[in-house]
Amino acid sequence: MHSSLMRAQKLFELVDLGPSQTCLITDLSDIRWLTGFSGSHAWLVVHHQELFLLTDGRYVEQARAEIEAHCAVVEVIECRTLAAMQKATETLTQGSATVQFQDSQLTYQNFLALQAELSSTLMPCDSSIKFLRRQKDDKEIQLIESACLIADHALQQCVHLLSTGVTENEVRDELEYAMRRLGADGPSYDTIVASGPTNSARPHHHPTGTKIENGHTVIIDVGALVAGYHSDMTRSFVVGPMSSEQAEWYEAVRAAQQAGVEACRPGVQVSEIDAACRRVLSQAGLEQYFTHGTGHGVGLVIHEEPFINSSCQAILQPGDVVTVEPGLYRGGFGGFRVEDLVVITEHGCRILNTSPKDPTCPPLQLTT
Amino acid sequence: MHSSLMRAQKLFELVDLGPSQTCLITDLSDIRWLTGFSGSHAWLVVHHQELFLLTDGRYVEQARAEIEAHCAVVEVIECRTLAAMQKATETLTQGSATVQFQDSQLTYQNFLALQAELSSTLMPCDSSIKFLRRQKDDKEIQLIESACLIADHALQQCVHLLSTGVTENEVRDELEYAMRRLGADGPSYDTIVASGPTNSARPHHHPTGTKIENGHTVIIDVGALVAGYHSDMTRSFVVGPMSSEQAEWYEAVRAAQQAGVEACRPGVQVSEIDAACRRVLSQAGLEQYFTHGTGHGVGLVIHEEPFINSSCQAILQPGDVVTVEPGLYRGGFGGFRVEDLVVITEHGCRILNTSPKDPTCPPLQLTT
Repeated sequence: MHSSLMRAQKLFELVDLGPSQTCLITDLSDIRWLTGFSGSHAWLVVHHQELFLLTDGRYVEQARAEIEAHCAVVEVIECRTLAAMQKATETLTQGSATVQFQDSQLTYQNFLALQAELSSTLMPCDSSIKFLRRQKDDKEIQLIESACLIADHALQQCVHLLSTGVTENEVRDELEYAMRRLGADGPSYDTIVASGPTNSARPHHHPTGTKIENGHTVIIDVGALVAGYHSDMTRSFVVGPMSSEQAEWYEAVRAAQQAGVEACRPGVQVSEIDAACRRVLSQAGLEQYFTHGTGHGVGLVIHEEPFINSSCQAILQPGDVVTVEPGLYRGGFGGFRVEDLVVITEHGCRILNTSPKDPTCPPLQLTT
Repeated sequence: MHSSLMRAQKLFELVDLGPSQTCLITDLSDIRWLTGFSGSHAWLVVHHQELFLLTDGRYVEQARAEIEAHCAVVEVIECRTLAAMQKATETLTQGSATVQFQDSQLTYQNFLALQAELSSTLMPCDSSIKFLRRQKDDKEIQLIESACLIADHALQQCVHLLSTGVTENEVRDELEYAMRRLGADGPSYDTIVASGPTNSARPHHHPTGTKIENGHTVIIDVGALVAGYHSDMTRSFVVGPMSSEQAEWYEAVRAAQQAGVEACRPGVQVSEIDAACRRVLSQAGLEQYFTHGTGHGVGLVIHEEPFINSSCQAILQPGDVVTVEPGLYRGGFGGFRVEDLVVITEHGCRILNTSPKDPTCPPLQLTT
């Protein structure tokens, strides 16, 4: 059975819709996963083994083409306005006792307006699709791996710039341009280039005109987007000779990241991945400088389930694609982060990135 | 008074909060407009002439720096989790009879969780900030104009590519790279490059590997992002000699767009802008091929109020920044769209774009 039909079948089983129940999906990533539709405006009504995509005139032709390419079976219904979508939902759900809806995706305003239109009662059903989407199939893993490869190659093309006096913005521009030239649909998220004692100490720094100088630590967090699927990778560098403290921090982060990756296998609770990273940093006396979560799932959304932190009880399963990304940050000194994207396999995990983890900035090497 | 304080004052006046009322703002663009904070996670509690920004550890330092640069007066409160944000909101709103909230920004799930935490009653108050944000001040208009200028220059640098056998993707890549090199923080939205009888007939086409060929119509819809402010512009081209039908369609769109711009002045209902465009297309017997709205406001959000269509009753006022963008589309033939961004002035409007409206593709001209 084609994967799109399998996905729909899993959905039908999960929500277990009898003739008197329907389900309304409003999360666009869920809709893409089920139907292939990549536009910015649609609702999907799931009605007893049938799927109906409601979208506006801009997207009708595109929706039909994408659904066909996805080998999905979905009827497309054109709705010119939000009110028309509400009315179409009522028509399709008449006679249902309840309509399950995604309460983390629908605004309070739209909930009230939709409920006013419907003769059935809206009932929250949130996490079902996110759960289904966690286990990636071979095609999805291939797309994510392609996205990783593009970011790896782009970084390889641009890393020599770091020692040439460029700015954070310029490195970001070249990385994103390189990813596009390598076939990416775009960056997977806002590329981070964070340099020096202040900026690299900010985990989510936005690139600036700051010039990258000798002695700076530089964090580069970059991913590519391919057919809706994301990659996510971080490497850290020191421009020029490393101080002993920089070397100590870098080695601690690298060892912590390796310990995290080594802990990734089916059956493990994700909090154990977090603990594996923290143990190494704690032994180095640096855990207090690790101020964010250890990782997250990646797929049609850059941050998706499972979220890897000390309190999440999710269990890793084959097909999970997650980041492992410990980092250390201290304002006035700088920061380091190392991140790989891994796919959980039958017995362990496989790293999808290929970028080396050497923190020195290589000079430009011309291919001969 | 500095504009940020004026904005806060306008908000206090608008929501008219006595000591027993508070307001929770969750729209990130509204928060940026009021405080300067540009991060991806925050709530703003407005409490009787005081502002409190709740955000997580990633953003505390950045929030304080941006608030200071914005000359705003806002206390930053660190909240590690969503639950902590809910608790902080309860602490700050205790004793309020009601807490006004943005019902088009809060999900149903978050509404229920927040209401469960609060001793006060949540009351929808949606459109107030959007209304305040419509009238741009001089600084905002300057930023939007800078963003327009960048897109104009990027298009000027890239338009010669159209007759060189490149693909839609390649033109998009070069445009976005050029905008970055010219100082943009990024593209203002997904750049559209739509060529030929099929793709250019799709108003929201996503660029592909389609090669741009002789005889193709090409629509380029491109904008830049500068300090959070967007620009938005469309030009249409024909590669090689124009057919008489292409020339007829292009002239109709261009005349319709000019009529729309000429109708832009204070006191005019936006539906009249739409009508002005449609009259020209109707006289040319082509109105049936104009399948989308005529325009929209642009600012911290690429599509914001007022929305220019046949049913919107908003009245243009000085400081409104809106697009005027009629287009014609017919599958198998192609499409044309011409779009300018204009700012409403005291007596009329001023076009913020400078790109010429010549549909022929100029060859590469080297500056001497």
